[in-house]
Amino acid sequence: MRYLSALNPVSRVAEVLPKVKKIEEVEKVAVWEAAGRVVARDVLAPHDYPPHPRAAYDGYAVNSDATPGRFKVVGTVLVGQYKRDLVLRPGETAYVTVGAFLPEGADAVVPEEAVKKEGDYVLVERKFEKYANADPPGSYVRKGTALLRTGYVVTPFDVVGLLDVGITTLYAYRKVKVGIVATGDELLVPPIDPEVAAELVMRGRVIESTASLVAWYIQTFMPYVEVREKVVTSDVHEEVRAAVEKFLAQYDAVIITGGAGPSEIDHFYKLGYEGLRGFRMKPGRPTSIAVIDGKPVFGLSGYPISALHGTVRIVEPVLRHMANVVKAPGYGWHYAAVTQDVTGDMAQIVRVKLEIGEGGLYATPIKAKHHSFTEPEADGVALIPPGGVKKGDIVAVLAYRDVKKS
Amino acid sequence: MRYLSALNPVSRVAEVLPKVKKIEEVEKVAVWEAAGRVVARDVLAPHDYPPHPRAAYDGYAVNSDATPGRFKVVGTVLVGQYKRDLVLRPGETAYVTVGAFLPEGADAVVPEEAVKKEGDYVLVERKFEKYANADPPGSYVRKGTALLRTGYVVTPFDVVGLLDVGITTLYAYRKVKVGIVATGDELLVPPIDPEVAAELVMRGRVIESTASLVAWYIQTFMPYVEVREKVVTSDVHEEVRAAVEKFLAQYDAVIITGGAGPSEIDHFYKLGYEGLRGFRMKPGRPTSIAVIDGKPVFGLSGYPISALHGTVRIVEPVLRHMANVVKAPGYGWHYAAVTQDVTGDMAQIVRVKLEIGEGGLYATPIKAKHHSFTEPEADGVALIPPGGVKKGDIVAVLAYRDVKKS
Repeated sequence: MRYLSALNPVSRVAEVLPKVKKIEEVEKVAVWEAAGRVVARDVLAPHDYPPHPRAAYDGYAVNSDATPGRFKVVGTVLVGQYKRDLVLRPGETAYVTVGAFLPEGADAVVPEEAVKKEGDYVLVERKFEKYANADPPGSYVRKGTALLRTGYVVTPFDVVGLLDVGITTLYAYRKVKVGIVATGDELLVPPIDPEVAAELVMRGRVIESTASLVAWYIQTFMPYVEVREKVVTSDVHEEVRAAVEKFLAQYDAVIITGGAGPSEIDHFYKLGYEGLRGFRMKPGRPTSIAVIDGKPVFGLSGYPISALHGTVRIVEPVLRHMANVVKAPGYGWHYAAVTQDVTGDMAQIVRVKLEIGEGGLYATPIKAKHHSFTEPEADGVALIPPGGVKKGDIVAVLAYRDVKKS
Repeated sequence: MRYLSALNPVSRVAEVLPKVKKIEEVEKVAVWEAAGRVVARDVLAPHDYPPHPRAAYDGYAVNSDATPGRFKVVGTVLVGQYKRDLVLRPGETAYVTVGAFLPEGADAVVPEEAVKKEGDYVLVERKFEKYANADPPGSYVRKGTALLRTGYVVTPFDVVGLLDVGITTLYAYRKVKVGIVATGDELLVPPIDPEVAAELVMRGRVIESTASLVAWYIQTFMPYVEVREKVVTSDVHEEVRAAVEKFLAQYDAVIITGGAGPSEIDHFYKLGYEGLRGFRMKPGRPTSIAVIDGKPVFGLSGYPISALHGTVRIVEPVLRHMANVVKAPGYGWHYAAVTQDVTGDMAQIVRVKLEIGEGGLYATPIKAKHHSFTEPEADGVALIPPGGVKKGDIVAVLAYRDVKKS
């Protein structure tokens, strides 16, 4: 019997990986267009950032050694202005806004509401420490720090973090290009009149949604893959073969949905490719894979739930491998147990490192004094309720790296 | 002192909700365009589906009472064909493919590989029960079942489920329209030359990314909101005011980023709106909200992490309320403890109901015999490894409903 006579364990997908051709082309891309791309060279900070102490509060830039004291206001530096020629002499101050680099001679900021104004002078009545209300040079990032490693998928959070410290380009692998062939005489393809479609479904027709779901999953969870084209074909095998061969010539991988059963239709079998045919998975047993000249061809069920199963178990690991992904993205809210107490009266959001343990996810807060997003160790941000949390408490975490076991 | 003299607890955002105008306009939309929309009327199944027994396997449609037995092959019904005029008499069978409605007179399918072929006849050597390898009428959904309740956000999974049973339209609220005003003389706005941008950052300029991050968060986690426009203004207050007032006239809500400090810039303060100014949250204390004629105006920090915090704590609950959301979407992989044993040698994907308990997420498998996605109780699908899992084991779950505590 030809059909699924010996199902393969899902783990055999590992045998396919050495046979597929990994993406080798590398492009230089602007960071603001890099979300979803796979990093091809470690992204190292080319300089300390900030290069000078930076105001973390609106107020008066002073030399901390001269506090408490009385200062003459000799200038203003708004965020975005560059006034390195403004040099404060003893007894002088300049008004600065959040994000501005402090003028030469200043190393702290006295909040606007903490001074007494006296004409051109401000009175500071208590001691302010060095770097009070200021981010010290290099506090966002130190020159040479690896902000992203080769194989990491750039997330929207990384984009913010890199731009924050003046990194505007990076090297990325080109995306994996995929074509999807949805097969089936029964398929109705929107846009169509919804009322007519509803009637036809009651007469046995099927509105195409399986290939759409597969495409959605890829676009959402595998941004390093580009679904370049999706065609819907009849069950005439020559038509399916032509579509598959065209896509094989143009793209890096082909996904076929439908016609995966034991019937006469069975396109994957008729294509005659050598490969793994049928897996020990339920639903989705007819899921199949063959590799043609380094390019995978996947056969998925026409049923949405089965096709989704095949996508997650078989398609994703293969395409991830081809894309050179070491660390996948994953945007979403999760629960995690905090590994240490976090104190504080206020509602907080804190950067956390996420780890997968026996009982699920664990979040370890990272001390990040500065306002930057740049925190190479962080995988997400956790919401801490007012009053803080105790070690072991469960918190909501917005992750940006994948938390799924591979 | 005018600035943040009395910070508000985050919980006071609840006081704002009764003041904002909820979306009332309802539209009829095609289901294949409905992902992300908020359901405005319960979606009830208008009929049983399938309307007739449906093949769950390729093979021969028979009357189960006549098995074991010998059947004459009198026809073929492929999925998508409608042959209700094909009536099987005793001793007759028809070849059917997965998804085809069984002809009148048949109630079970004998798999192709389980028959012996003898010319025009097939020999079935053992008993097959009623509905063996067939989905009984109404097994996907019963007429009148609520598939989606008012206030649910339609997910890509719901789209598949509804189309699967022939539901092609639903009533949805129109999306909440938002305008974002990013303020700051220091802002550089891509597209620009990346090398030039990098140099300017070292001289104090900032590449706009805060408003982009807020927009990304909204697009990703609040698909029922449409970011209609995003403008970047200088810090000239009149320019900011003009942008805010224009957006207030055109859209349902306005978000301002930047200029939220105590400095002279402080656009939110200068606008003069009554509202909640400053929250007990860290970072993000200057987060503010006012309601103008039922439309919220949000003031967020110019720092990405602070603006994100304000978005999650203040913006999201208000816009969700305006959008009439009862159950938000949330697409992502999570860990959950299963609440009962799941047996099976094969790798499985199973529909689960998700609940948030003390220790995190709990997943209760739902018995779903059929292949449909339609399962009103399910919140996601869980991956079960080969060999099954024991109660309390942690499994990976692809959720489609939000799992975050509100």
